Amino acid sequence: MDNLKIAAIGGGTGLSTLLRGLKKYSGNITAIVNVADDGGSSGKLRDELGVLPPGDIRNCLVALSEEESMMSRLFQYRFPAKGTLSGHSFGNLFLTAMSSISGSFDSAIANSGEVLAIRGKVLPVTLSSVVLEADLENGKKISGESNIGKVKERIKTITLNPAFPPAAPQVLETLKNADVIILGPGSLYTSIIVNLLVGGVADALKSSKAYKIYVCNIMTQPGETKDYTLSDHVRAIEEHTYKGVIDCILASSGEVPENLVKRYRKYGADQVKINKTGVKTIKSKLFSDEKYARHDSDKLAKTLIKIIKEKSGIKDNKND
Amino acid sequence: MDNLKIAAIGGGTGLSTLLRGLKKYSGNITAIVNVADDGGSSGKLRDELGVLPPGDIRNCLVALSEEESMMSRLFQYRFPAKGTLSGHSFGNLFLTAMSSISGSFDSAIANSGEVLAIRGKVLPVTLSSVVLEADLENGKKISGESNIGKVKERIKTITLNPAFPPAAPQVLETLKNADVIILGPGSLYTSIIVNLLVGGVADALKSSKAYKIYVCNIMTQPGETKDYTLSDHVRAIEEHTYKGVIDCILASSGEVPENLVKRYRKYGADQVKINKTGVKTIKSKLFSDEKYARHDSDKLAKTLIKIIKEKSGIKDNKND
Repeated sequence: MDNLKIAAIGGGTGLSTLLRGLKKYSGNITAIVNVADDGGSSGKLRDELGVLPPGDIRNCLVALSEEESMMSRLFQYRFPAKGTLSGHSFGNLFLTAMSSISGSFDSAIANSGEVLAIRGKVLPVTLSSVVLEADLENGKKISGESNIGKVKERIKTITLNPAFPPAAPQVLETLKNADVIILGPGSLYTSIIVNLLVGGVADALKSSKAYKIYVCNIMTQPGETKDYTLSDHVRAIEEHTYKGVIDCILASSGEVPENLVKRYRKYGADQVKINKTGVKTIKSKLFSDEKYARHDSDKLAKTLIKIIKEKSGIKDNKND
Repeated sequence: MDNLKIAAIGGGTGLSTLLRGLKKYSGNITAIVNVADDGGSSGKLRDELGVLPPGDIRNCLVALSEEESMMSRLFQYRFPAKGTLSGHSFGNLFLTAMSSISGSFDSAIANSGEVLAIRGKVLPVTLSSVVLEADLENGKKISGESNIGKVKERIKTITLNPAFPPAAPQVLETLKNADVIILGPGSLYTSIIVNLLVGGVADALKSSKAYKIYVCNIMTQPGETKDYTLSDHVRAIEEHTYKGVIDCILASSGEVPENLVKRYRKYGADQVKINKTGVKTIKSKLFSDEKYARHDSDKLAKTLIKIIKEKSGIKDNKND
């Protein structure tokens, strides 16, 4: 089990949540991370310095680290000194230093896993600077991931500009050779589908013999999935890749407390309604029992590993 | 074997050489490192910033790292930016950041092993700011590690000022619980004995059931061990601790090429003459075949592991 090759596709806090739990079960996880992020300070870094947005990548490195709390504090640390380096987090200085000695940002990320105590690997899905665009059902076009996240109308399709940017080294290979590919949890369009629009990714998913599990978000998002049922989520993924891309859906079994749901409803979000999708669907209690309706890392990982074991008949083997 | 608790006491390049090889055989190595270093930039850092000299500690972290070449380049990296951080290596910035989030330098070093991909642990022998002093056979006194390394007269005894500074956390415990304690290779007085003068270290060696191996340098050093035979080395260690402290000596079997020895002789150094010591002595080819008469990491580690296995009857066990 420890050598089970797991590829996790996503971005944002959802991917970190997944990795944080999964690292306890497999030492062979590769996170394939969305880099079309134009919001926040990562987006600014991209605009100002022309480097790929390191935010999600940094978070994935932290989530996969063996001493997560220490690594998290280290990566967030800012030197009190004056000068050009003082405004940056240690995490960004680390990635900058690694980029410089590795020759490129993608090598830097790959090499980070070698010098840090990390269980697994992190890969940006593409090295190209891409902008996410959305065609809405009302005929309008929206540009930029952060704008798309705030859209009020239903999204029809999303595309990358330029379209089908080349995948970063190792991405397609990782997907083809994986035993399991996990999509999500995370924002449907801006964290999951965005990765599937990179050149070769959909084909790699198709040709891979991996068992493909989609972890659907617990709640809809007012910006991009308002009123989406489970089948709406699946349909969106299939329409942007191919029919049958998902072997199994893992859905939260609607156990979010009513008072929490009420709070989400004020912002136009609600629990994802689990309807018929035509795809094998497993419902499980995945809610974190915290103040947000998010997945619990441990419950999610445990459930995924159970699904994977049942599917593949893998037995526990403590030897490497 | 992978869980064999090895404590390595020393400093300088000798300790790094030892660790570099040993990490392939044990994942449970603790390097106990001399911090009385007042030479070079580490000494300057101590003088200017009042922090323990990070040089040897940094080198040990690099030597124990899983991707040594990458870690080495990362730790040496200097940012081209302007400002107060620009003059420092990434390694020092890393230790500074770790010190800040860990609350102290020793915690920082201990925690470094948790966030970096390191096989083992590094501990400063003491957290006190100490100065090494030497009483020479001609009655003179010399102060400071870097001066003692250049001394022309024979050293009678060395002491720390203040004497018997308290050992850093975990040091005495590590020595007491070790299966094997390795002293050296390294400068006899300024890298090895200096550690044994820290409060409680000699007692911990005595009460520990560990098998204690002394790896003698291949060559004498003009500054501190001119004309020293093997028994002179052993006598010096015993006089600064207690008789019988060494269970086994590992000595290089004098295979250094004559032309290389000639070059060393110009600087007052020569091969350590292997004479009777009263201690079990194992001679082995440990020379690195390079342009310096130094130990080869792999040969040294292999030989030590063979000695340890033979002594303790440990069988290989690939399971953790």
